[in-house]
Amino acid sequence: MNSRNPIEPSSLLRGLFRKAVEAADPRAVLAGHLPERPKGRTLVLGAGKAVAAMAQAVERAWGGPLEGLVVTRYGHGLPCERIEVVEAAHPVPDAAGLAAARRIRAAVDGLTADDLVLFLVSGGGSALLTAPADGLSLEDKQAVNRALLRSGAAIDEMNCVRKHLSGIKGGRLAAAAAPAQVVTLAISDVPGDDPSVIASGPTVADPTTLADARTILARYGIAPPPAVARHLDGEAEETPKPGDPRLAKAVYRLIARPQASLEAAASAARAAGVTPVILGDSLEGEARDVGKVLAGVARQARRFGQPAAPPCVLLSGGETTVTVRGGGRGGRNVEFLLSLAIALNGADGVWGIACDTDGIDGSEDNAGALFGPDSLARAVALGLSPSAFLADNDAYSFFDRLGDLVVTGPTYTNVNDFRAVLVV
Amino acid sequence: MNSRNPIEPSSLLRGLFRKAVEAADPRAVLAGHLPERPKGRTLVLGAGKAVAAMAQAVERAWGGPLEGLVVTRYGHGLPCERIEVVEAAHPVPDAAGLAAARRIRAAVDGLTADDLVLFLVSGGGSALLTAPADGLSLEDKQAVNRALLRSGAAIDEMNCVRKHLSGIKGGRLAAAAAPAQVVTLAISDVPGDDPSVIASGPTVADPTTLADARTILARYGIAPPPAVARHLDGEAEETPKPGDPRLAKAVYRLIARPQASLEAAASAARAAGVTPVILGDSLEGEARDVGKVLAGVARQARRFGQPAAPPCVLLSGGETTVTVRGGGRGGRNVEFLLSLAIALNGADGVWGIACDTDGIDGSEDNAGALFGPDSLARAVALGLSPSAFLADNDAYSFFDRLGDLVVTGPTYTNVNDFRAVLVV
Repeated sequence: MNSRNPIEPSSLLRGLFRKAVEAADPRAVLAGHLPERPKGRTLVLGAGKAVAAMAQAVERAWGGPLEGLVVTRYGHGLPCERIEVVEAAHPVPDAAGLAAARRIRAAVDGLTADDLVLFLVSGGGSALLTAPADGLSLEDKQAVNRALLRSGAAIDEMNCVRKHLSGIKGGRLAAAAAPAQVVTLAISDVPGDDPSVIASGPTVADPTTLADARTILARYGIAPPPAVARHLDGEAEETPKPGDPRLAKAVYRLIARPQASLEAAASAARAAGVTPVILGDSLEGEARDVGKVLAGVARQARRFGQPAAPPCVLLSGGETTVTVRGGGRGGRNVEFLLSLAIALNGADGVWGIACDTDGIDGSEDNAGALFGPDSLARAVALGLSPSAFLADNDAYSFFDRLGDLVVTGPTYTNVNDFRAVLVV
Repeated sequence: MNSRNPIEPSSLLRGLFRKAVEAADPRAVLAGHLPERPKGRTLVLGAGKAVAAMAQAVERAWGGPLEGLVVTRYGHGLPCERIEVVEAAHPVPDAAGLAAARRIRAAVDGLTADDLVLFLVSGGGSALLTAPADGLSLEDKQAVNRALLRSGAAIDEMNCVRKHLSGIKGGRLAAAAAPAQVVTLAISDVPGDDPSVIASGPTVADPTTLADARTILARYGIAPPPAVARHLDGEAEETPKPGDPRLAKAVYRLIARPQASLEAAASAARAAGVTPVILGDSLEGEARDVGKVLAGVARQARRFGQPAAPPCVLLSGGETTVTVRGGGRGGRNVEFLLSLAIALNGADGVWGIACDTDGIDGSEDNAGALFGPDSLARAVALGLSPSAFLADNDAYSFFDRLGDLVVTGPTYTNVNDFRAVLVV
């Protein structure tokens, strides 16, 4: 510990979250990833929750002419001068999103080898870029999607089928843009940062086939609508495969990802004399159980100096889930944090922060919240029962009553959740 | 990695589990904790799932005369020559347990300052030592207990009330044994290894009061049966408090605990050239969610070398929970392991073992199971759906079909679960 700068836990934790968000802010990191100016046109297209900020960053850094269209979630738009920003529904697509996706697909027709497509993509892009393949209706796609969700199919199986019903995903957008060069700038919010997963990879070759999609539907006993069956039986063209010459010039650059944000927070912790322990950039599980597990690791650090001796901070990213059983308010970050606080039961020397890096935890106005060793005692003094709030999925109200919500507003980026548990 | 001894994952993991159990085996560790022989009688008393092996270890190591009575769970008895071993029901007490508890309490009456009570205790001892305080019936205690379980009271609140309704817990046994010396030898299976929590501390001073117990019942709106109300209102004597002269000579020795077993496994891993990371000796949470979290940490080790670079092994103890929704077979360790395997989805280089150190995972015949990168593929080749087995809480059958159960039989000790995830 740096004895000249004693640790002030709450401001340290807020500072770590700020560093994590900054490391993922397109306005800070995008410019360095831009390609050379092309001889021909520059077309900026894209989709995702962070895409408006990405478009702004391109406009500011780009020397030459450009034009374009990006689609983001309602409330996540930012003013751009030359790039049109459309807002649409997420996660269930609406007419605005369908129309924008159609326009994006049409925009790449007729490009030449001198042209450049800058494709900007971040989490949320898949739902925002819904474009059924020729001959399929939105209803066809949705029927198959609902059946897959009920079937117990794995996420990569679902994605394989979805790509083969889309006119834009699985590399089809890049193939349609050939012979223009396509440079994708991506912000990842998915485990493994797999380019073919982020927004279902509109500009990335797809190793899966129509036959794979048929096998998956058969495996789960799903009888698709007739148009889908005909489509998968060979009416459709295969998605472009690795090595496809149309994607030969395609370039993919990851400009922000959860691990980079955790590393940025780790550096800031180290500078404050606190040992960082990065447990994972993609921890998953029910939020309240992830809270119990991290409470166990914090107790271990405090009692046995493992996996690191205090002062240390346990950092993790990824997206937990909340199975809603109560009628309260709050997203997965505050639910995680309340469970963590209850499991720690007022243990000395442990503080925590959990926030969504996009600035919005669930559907409330907060990014997340903070807790400390006195949180439960302060709650009880106010007559609040922590376990009752957790049982009602009402962690937002709990931390609101304590005055411990973290409110940032939309950050215009998204590298998933950020959790830091400080043990001193 | 030790290149002369390449890692054989399954045998390495089995070896780590064996080391963890050995470090908690009373027949290996108890003798070194025995006190001097007293001038007077030596009385061996005790309760818990491991107490028969503890009694055997005392008989083998003790030089002088002794007599005694211990109570363990059905099926956990071992033959002793001079100490009577009674088997009884757990976790719901039966007549055999009630009678044994009454005899244990009566055995300490009339001892002198020259006598020694060796009190042997391990997990499960609380239910096996059920002895309602004078004036209370078993039904009175059970009515309050049921109300507490429904109330949402915290575990330490429940334990406070329970101690004040018992004739033996909360230090009452040691107080009744005065002026004899009481030496407690304990095996811990509880988070924090708190002596007052293991079997509710029959030989440990109790800082809580009758007034505390009344306050807790009032807080949760519990109206106790009339006999309990009179008891808590002052008919009962307080439990012995810290500093009570009757407990002045009482000695408490923890002879085995989860952390010691994890450290033993860590040493063995290190000797094999594998970096151990102890995440916690008391991780809690729903088994399948703990599996998802540890899958995330394993992915992080494999991809980013955090919290340690491969080859490394993530070690943890503690007791997960299983919310049973299906009709299958299996304890919390195999449920954890199947969820871990599904979350890892065949990831290269990750193996795991999860076993109960008592040798029995839930109510089956196995201690736990093993998995490796090929487990899911082998299952699918057999026509098994891993997610369907998990949904049906049928992980025992899953690993049974793969031939990957770990079967040891009862180990006659218990320091809770042992999990090791190897990343190479």
